[in-house]
Amino acid sequence: MVFLTRRSRFNAAHKLWVKDWSDEKNMEIFGKCANPNFHGHNYTLYVTVKGEPDPVTGMLINAKDLAAIIKGEVIDKLDHKNLNLDVPFIPEGMQTTCENLAIVIWQRIHPKIQQCQLHCVRLEETENIYTEYFG
Amino acid sequence: MVFLTRRSRFNAAHKLWVKDWSDEKNMEIFGKCANPNFHGHNYTLYVTVKGEPDPVTGMLINAKDLAAIIKGEVIDKLDHKNLNLDVPFIPEGMQTTCENLAIVIWQRIHPKIQQCQLHCVRLEETENIYTEYFG
Amino acid sequence: MVFLTRRSRFNAAHKLWVKDWSDEKNMEIFGKCANPNFHGHNYTLYVTVKGEPDPVTGMLINAKDLAAIIKGEVIDKLDHKNLNLDVPFIPEGMQTTCENLAIVIWQRIHPKIQQCQLHCVRLEETENIYTEYFG
Amino acid sequence: MVFLTRRSRFNAAHKLWVKDWSDEKNMEIFGKCANPNFHGHNYTLYVTVKGEPDPVTGMLINAKDLAAIIKGEVIDKLDHKNLNLDVPFIPEGMQTTCENLAIVIWQRIHPKIQQCQLHCVRLEETENIYTEYFG
Amino acid sequence: MVFLTRRSRFNAAHKLWVKDWSDEKNMEIFGKCANPNFHGHNYTLYVTVKGEPDPVTGMLINAKDLAAIIKGEVIDKLDHKNLNLDVPFIPEGMQTTCENLAIVIWQRIHPKIQQCQLHCVRLEETENIYTEYFG
Amino acid sequence: MVFLTRRSRFNAAHKLWVKDWSDEKNMEIFGKCANPNFHGHNYTLYVTVKGEPDPVTGMLINAKDLAAIIKGEVIDKLDHKNLNLDVPFIPEGMQTTCENLAIVIWQRIHPKIQQCQLHCVRLEETENIYTEYFG
Repeated sequence: MVFLTRRSRFNAAHKLWVKDWSDEKNMEIFGKCANPNFHGHNYTLYVTVKGEPDPVTGMLINAKDLAAIIKGEVIDKLDHKNLNLDVPFIPEGMQTTCENLAIVIWQRIHPKIQQCQLHCVRLEETENIYTEYFG
Repeated sequence: MVFLTRRSRFNAAHKLWVKDWSDEKNMEIFGKCANPNFHGHNYTLYVTVKGEPDPVTGMLINAKDLAAIIKGEVIDKLDHKNLNLDVPFIPEGMQTTCENLAIVIWQRIHPKIQQCQLHCVRLEETENIYTEYFG
Repeated sequence: MVFLTRRSRFNAAHKLWVKDWSDEKNMEIFGKCANPNFHGHNYTLYVTVKGEPDPVTGMLINAKDLAAIIKGEVIDKLDHKNLNLDVPFIPEGMQTTCENLAIVIWQRIHPKIQQCQLHCVRLEETENIYTEYFG
Repeated sequence: MVFLTRRSRFNAAHKLWVKDWSDEKNMEIFGKCANPNFHGHNYTLYVTVKGEPDPVTGMLINAKDLAAIIKGEVIDKLDHKNLNLDVPFIPEGMQTTCENLAIVIWQRIHPKIQQCQLHCVRLEETENIYTEYFG
Repeated sequence: MVFLTRRSRFNAAHKLWVKDWSDEKNMEIFGKCANPNFHGHNYTLYVTVKGEPDPVTGMLINAKDLAAIIKGEVIDKLDHKNLNLDVPFIPEGMQTTCENLAIVIWQRIHPKIQQCQLHCVRLEETENIYTEYFG
Repeated sequence: MVFLTRRSRFNAAHKLWVKDWSDEKNMEIFGKCANPNFHGHNYTLYVTVKGEPDPVTGMLINAKDLAAIIKGEVIDKLDHKNLNLDVPFIPEGMQTTCENLAIVIWQRIHPKIQQCQLHCVRLEETENIYTEYFG
């Protein structure tokens, strides 16, 4: 079994905010991430799949096909968007933390990978923080 | 003369939008950067100063002092903010392009550098685009 | 289960040296790392925790709390220090290899993580060498 | 058990091409990677070993020894070579995909690691694609 | 005056070889870069332009236009190609050193930049070597 | 005229300390960099030369020759050393700041570059701080 990882990137605005909390509590828990007018990130996404390379092509999955799935399911939906307002598959009230975004991205990509298996979604929010989800 | 550069980072939301233009023209000129609900970036800022190192300390400027100026004048004002809405020294109507932001950041830092001279402000918007301003 | 990783950095001096060995044997085994007057590194530390994101905040652990633990237990103790001389929890005679440092850092952080589980400590000594410890 | 990873690099030319296929089919499946006159990459190789650090030296394996194995078995054979034409242990007809190369590199290094165990070979073809093989 | 830099990447095969020299002399001067069957690199290209930002758009040049010029004039011609055999504007006998490639790339891009001025072409062959050409 | 830059790296221990000052003043001015038992860094050195590429070889200077000069004059003298104690050409009392080190490295390399001209020495102490010296 071999693992193949493809890196992609998108830029988006977001904020962390619990509606039922006071402004003070939001600020205390989320700090600068609670800025009402949003802030944003250059996200880096690593999608890892696993399986046996095809004996003829030597490929686990055609890199073009994997790239097309990631672009169609994730990048086209999130790039240059506001994650709190613009994305149909991020339900209202779900915090747009790096943790939750990794899970949501897994759910988008998982049903589209046929030739091999999805292994991991890794999402980097800044060069100091990233999350991983293995399903 | 020696040059010293310090790197800093901030995250912010923004969009590019000319009020007097139609939605179509904004989209045509600014592409995805015109998304109405904003998008964002992890900005990387490099501030370069120049001068003679002090004969006793060997320093052009105390790195702590330079860091404090950059933090006070730029990072504290821009980090986790919306560049179109939250920043008093970015005038309404000024496009928040990487070009204009480099100039604005220069204007903030320049009057505060005393022991040596400001040489360059370099601002990276993504790993593929950056601007430089030398005053 | 989601995994969250936080990157930190510290600078330190060290050397590799077994007291019971001759100078020649130390040089033969440890090479340039046995330079008697020490050398040093910019270390990069990745701490990974795992668990379920909180349903309200979407967070595995508040990033501020994780950062505070890493800073208090590791960075404040090791940054700008001599790892052979200045660190109480590195016992005399323990080699300050990247392998041993990863274990020692795990032991410092492990008892402080309450809301979720420590998964991995990864320590990079140079851009060519790193170690990982999973407890 | 501790894990130690060493990074190495090599540059090589290659192409992807199935002899039994028409030119059109090769182009359709492999895209630009089927350019008849070859193209090339800066490959980055991460070799991870695992085991217990020696109680005296604190080392899993002497980094010099690990480096010598990787250099002798892989870098000296692949660096500044044509992977389709110049490498005896890449059989004719085996596609030089990143997937297959990771497996071939594992097979070269595995019998040479004695003091500890080989855990993973990770091969990066570009900054957007890498593969991993765990044996 | 503001400077704007855009990064691009391409992969290509090449070798260094002077036809009039013996094999021995080629090997002595060019070392591993003279491997007869070619080797290759992931090249990184930085194109810097300079000028005044437009007062309405805040842009020196529309990033889409700059990207299209670089793609059309350079990336589409060099990516996944053999620099010694496949590129019409690299004359036979011109060594494909990083120095010469920077000059050739400048000559391709310079006539296409209208709204502002080309300032610098920077070409990175590996993470350890790059060249710059200012015209 | 073309510019060629070569990256090198070395690891070293150092501290900042003015002998004539009290401990308090040293701590106040140099902060953590005044730790008595030294700390250290992974330094990254960029040496830039300029000139005309040779019409036959296409090279400004043979990369092997440039590498040999940097290795012999700088890396062999500074790598895995204590910059305050082990380096004959760093005079006692000279602070080992990144500013002064760039000047000292220039002075070592400058007389050895014959085929072209030394243009710049750039020294990175951490990923956040670097200095440049142009002679």
